[in-house]
Amino acid sequence: MVAAGLNSLVTNLSSPPIPAVQAWGKSYDGSQGSLIDLSQAVPGYPAHEKMLQWLGEAASSLAYTNYGPIEGENVLREAYAAHVSEVYGAEVSADNIHITSGCNQAFVCASMVVASAGSTILVTDPFYFNHDTTLSMLGIKMRTVECSAPEGFVPTIEAIKVAMTPDVRAVALVTPNNPTGAIYPADRLLAVLNLCRELGIWLILDETYRDFLPDGAGAPHALFSVGEWENNLIQLYSFSKSLCIPGHRLGAITAGSAIVDEIAKIMDNLQICPPRAPQAAVARALPALTEWRDGNRLEIELRAKALHEVMGGLNEWRLESIGAYFAFVRHPFENVSSVTVAEQLAKRAGILAIPGEYFGSKQTSFLRFAFANADAPTIRQLRGRLANFEL
Amino acid sequence: MVAAGLNSLVTNLSSPPIPAVQAWGKSYDGSQGSLIDLSQAVPGYPAHEKMLQWLGEAASSLAYTNYGPIEGENVLREAYAAHVSEVYGAEVSADNIHITSGCNQAFVCASMVVASAGSTILVTDPFYFNHDTTLSMLGIKMRTVECSAPEGFVPTIEAIKVAMTPDVRAVALVTPNNPTGAIYPADRLLAVLNLCRELGIWLILDETYRDFLPDGAGAPHALFSVGEWENNLIQLYSFSKSLCIPGHRLGAITAGSAIVDEIAKIMDNLQICPPRAPQAAVARALPALTEWRDGNRLEIELRAKALHEVMGGLNEWRLESIGAYFAFVRHPFENVSSVTVAEQLAKRAGILAIPGEYFGSKQTSFLRFAFANADAPTIRQLRGRLANFEL
Repeated sequence: MVAAGLNSLVTNLSSPPIPAVQAWGKSYDGSQGSLIDLSQAVPGYPAHEKMLQWLGEAASSLAYTNYGPIEGENVLREAYAAHVSEVYGAEVSADNIHITSGCNQAFVCASMVVASAGSTILVTDPFYFNHDTTLSMLGIKMRTVECSAPEGFVPTIEAIKVAMTPDVRAVALVTPNNPTGAIYPADRLLAVLNLCRELGIWLILDETYRDFLPDGAGAPHALFSVGEWENNLIQLYSFSKSLCIPGHRLGAITAGSAIVDEIAKIMDNLQICPPRAPQAAVARALPALTEWRDGNRLEIELRAKALHEVMGGLNEWRLESIGAYFAFVRHPFENVSSVTVAEQLAKRAGILAIPGEYFGSKQTSFLRFAFANADAPTIRQLRGRLANFEL
Repeated sequence: MVAAGLNSLVTNLSSPPIPAVQAWGKSYDGSQGSLIDLSQAVPGYPAHEKMLQWLGEAASSLAYTNYGPIEGENVLREAYAAHVSEVYGAEVSADNIHITSGCNQAFVCASMVVASAGSTILVTDPFYFNHDTTLSMLGIKMRTVECSAPEGFVPTIEAIKVAMTPDVRAVALVTPNNPTGAIYPADRLLAVLNLCRELGIWLILDETYRDFLPDGAGAPHALFSVGEWENNLIQLYSFSKSLCIPGHRLGAITAGSAIVDEIAKIMDNLQICPPRAPQAAVARALPALTEWRDGNRLEIELRAKALHEVMGGLNEWRLESIGAYFAFVRHPFENVSSVTVAEQLAKRAGILAIPGEYFGSKQTSFLRFAFANADAPTIRQLRGRLANFEL
């Protein structure tokens, strides 16, 4: 007997890539020293002790055991709206905020609110693999905008226009980019929003890695100050990375209040409300841990500098792009799949990186390094391991 | 300027019903005494203090800050598999378990793994409203099996066969039922599974309210002992109700291990992993709080008995069905919408109940009472308020 029929949109998806890559790491023999995990983006420093204390206090309180508001706790929506207003120098209110269980869920909601099975969303190539699989499982078609190394992997307006078709409902961009690390300039983002406005479509802007922009870089963009931005912009964020609490699953959507109302209908079905206790804790942490987050931002700049230095001395491995959190590295093995390179690198050199192919079939010459996971001394160990690595 | 286009499958959904009903309660003037909230199913007693302690310990631990396994924490999958094995007298292993953020999310996953936009799932009428909205937003068609008061709102095999069409991919049932409270007999459930097997389709069985079955009722059914059950059965559960922790969002799917692998692909997109800290806490609570849960089961039987007594003396209001957690009550106002009755009952009598229409357009003569929310003395107050209520 075989099982009853399944949804081919799901069975056709490849298995989640991160566990597969982590499994390679388990076969590493340790000959080159400790495993250096540059795979899943996980800051290699712990959450602040106050963060843990507040998480514990909220979780042990009777106050958060019952169901909460679908859109998220009011305290967190207020605190995050104030934070967004400050970061972007704009006026964003709690009505513009919908809390989610992480940024992947925010992308699911943003995609579903603008598109259904059969319609199309435009993403970059390379793309974040969960955007690909999310759209596939929902039956939403995906078109891609080519991003090249000479352009710093930032999509040009011309390339977006070339890829555009009348059935495209939204352009989904990630800045700072996953996988390339590329930081999209504010004027390019404004040009994309204006193009979306002309076409009457949406810009879905995933800014999960915003907190790792270089110190003193100023506002990431001015889109929230554009009049009637609510008609064309849905912005996504994650509390996982900068607060080091991915296991507590919290993200946020910033959008027009009418869009927030529509997303609440989706979220009511997806999970009724986000987990409450961590929301209360994050509402306390957002204003209180600013200095700590700024310190981490500086630490990650040191890590980027260390990777620059390491890669500078390795002629065969080329750092094609590095930005906030990620680097996109060209491996030296012509005509060898990035999957083979990444697997062997994990098993024999103890370096876990994600194959470029997971971000698009054209990306087989690349590996993604989540360099911000490792401290500078660890990153310096990459030089010897990469220099000695042979296939 | 208007906003760019939205997905009509979402915009056409009605707003989430629970907040709308709760808003009526806010207009109650208090003239009849405190508001009696029989709307959203929320046990009217607090979580165990040990539960709160364990939630706090896990949440304040660094151990659960990072990403966890997509399928759920191993400790919880093991503990819940042991629990399921004991409850059903069957052999279920951790590989058969996928943890979710509540049972609504479990239903989303179960629906998506068997059906895509354009295919059909069969539910009962009355149905749980979030099953309706979940299928609608996914573009999955819904057909209904009529359940009548004379049959105790349990679907007959004949009625299922009448409703069946070749495009049906799954039959979704809820037992103990939401909204009617009906407890489906084990032999009926076996007959439905056998029918699904004959037709090569799935039975999705939502048992969120299993822990409120009458004391000594024995196993809810024997489906997990049927050979090759994994080929046709996906079973859903919630930790929210019996442990009184809906705000921490945890549910579970029990299915074949191959189905669990497919659901992991969906969950990786939906939220990468369920919130980790509450999983660790529930793994401790499951074996430890058995006696406490058994005590609550007895308490809820007392509440059912109190409601029986109250309704027995009210000729015009008829208790058409009562079971584990819910009662389905026929109101005395002919040709008046259940929405009008529920709204007035909330605003003037201080009784919050869900209109029958929210569970299907044919259910306008009914209200759902989540009687288990209120203790017996509170339930006894219903008599006077209902007897005096006029439209």
